[in-house]
Amino acid sequence: MEVITSLDNKKIKEYAKLLKKKYRDLNNKFLIEGRHLVLEALKSGYLEEVILTYDEVIPIEVKKTYVTKEVIKKLTNVLSVPDIVGVCKKLEEKEIGDKVIVLDGLQDPGNLGTIIRSAVAFGVDTIVLSNDCVDLYNDKVIRATQGMIFHINIVKRNLLEFLPRIKNEYQIIGTKVTHGIEISDIDLQDKYAFILGNEGQGVKEEVLDLCDCYANILMDDMCESLNVGVASSIIMYELYKKGRKV
Amino acid sequence: MEVITSLDNKKIKEYAKLLKKKYRDLNNKFLIEGRHLVLEALKSGYLEEVILTYDEVIPIEVKKTYVTKEVIKKLTNVLSVPDIVGVCKKLEEKEIGDKVIVLDGLQDPGNLGTIIRSAVAFGVDTIVLSNDCVDLYNDKVIRATQGMIFHINIVKRNLLEFLPRIKNEYQIIGTKVTHGIEISDIDLQDKYAFILGNEGQGVKEEVLDLCDCYANILMDDMCESLNVGVASSIIMYELYKKGRKV
Repeated sequence: MEVITSLDNKKIKEYAKLLKKKYRDLNNKFLIEGRHLVLEALKSGYLEEVILTYDEVIPIEVKKTYVTKEVIKKLTNVLSVPDIVGVCKKLEEKEIGDKVIVLDGLQDPGNLGTIIRSAVAFGVDTIVLSNDCVDLYNDKVIRATQGMIFHINIVKRNLLEFLPRIKNEYQIIGTKVTHGIEISDIDLQDKYAFILGNEGQGVKEEVLDLCDCYANILMDDMCESLNVGVASSIIMYELYKKGRKV
Repeated sequence: MEVITSLDNKKIKEYAKLLKKKYRDLNNKFLIEGRHLVLEALKSGYLEEVILTYDEVIPIEVKKTYVTKEVIKKLTNVLSVPDIVGVCKKLEEKEIGDKVIVLDGLQDPGNLGTIIRSAVAFGVDTIVLSNDCVDLYNDKVIRATQGMIFHINIVKRNLLEFLPRIKNEYQIIGTKVTHGIEISDIDLQDKYAFILGNEGQGVKEEVLDLCDCYANILMDDMCESLNVGVASSIIMYELYKKGRKV
């Protein structure tokens, strides 16, 4: 069996380029790391092939390329080098569901990954990313999703066009730290889009202008605001509980 | 006015050492970055002095050392170099309050910082860190607290000694992903200690053995678990709401 040992191998160099957004966009592919993510990608039909070291034994039917530890290091940004890396095609955008979370300008990859993970935990259908959000296929985003990226519909939209288009059908709820209805008191409609904003600035003014109402989270005055991953998760948790009570 | 321009300046070299845990422990001091954190530290009485560039104008009465941009770079691990860095003495441990969050072996600095921020938002008195938690004064922890580190009592304990000692007085609640009472249904006592665990392994078995009951968060089967910063925050949020209803 062939094992790639050269750091200059052409195929590996091509894959390593997928660590950069530009090449992910160009090839419509992205990398994932570790056994757990590879299995999740396989189940969801997005896995195209794997690159692995001899330490990894994985009984799956997919194209396999064996490499040395030194070579697989080229395919990751983290210090704890994985024994398996998967090459996936980018996720297909599906139709917008009924329970929608909209993220306006989110910048931190850890936050985006955490929100995707919580969204699956709390039964959200669809996540809509504004065009200025951090790249969904950034390796830190993928790691933070813990594989949940393959279990939810995620689409990218210009919010100033998208929100007016769904406004008749969906209840559009914005978040402001100091304004609005407490989240557990919101009179929720069947179809809703809940908007959360950027880490520093929150939801943009022109996006807030498109909302039907505003919500916030009950908390102590001592603290100005919550981490956006936490705030989103608490909101999705409350909406999930409401949905279960009906 | 004197401005330090040399990267070899003795004082700056001493401060730069505080980026390492070993020297923070040795000197009982730590660094904070940016105006917001400096003001929070000042209010709380932990700020000893500041190092700043000429771009920063801050009308506070504390020992000031002016340096160049190149010099202040030595005092941070981040690429976006701050214009002001504060030197603080480490936080004093105070008496354990009534509403306690216990963290068992938490490793990710972002998670610890987020939990501290949420704890202040949701009126927790005291955070107890097990001895094997990530260092509280790690720069990533401090950044993620958004200044809230100065507004809560944080202590470090050997949990296997600490928990038996408070067991008569406090309700000790552990978290397991798949066991226990749903968090909103818990019959909460006046004094409680809520235990959350490590990112990968959760709460240690020997610590779980010391609990009076277990709690979990209502969620969809599709997702195995939540990020620990999110899980902690949802729990603290629910306990805060309960407290407000009484």
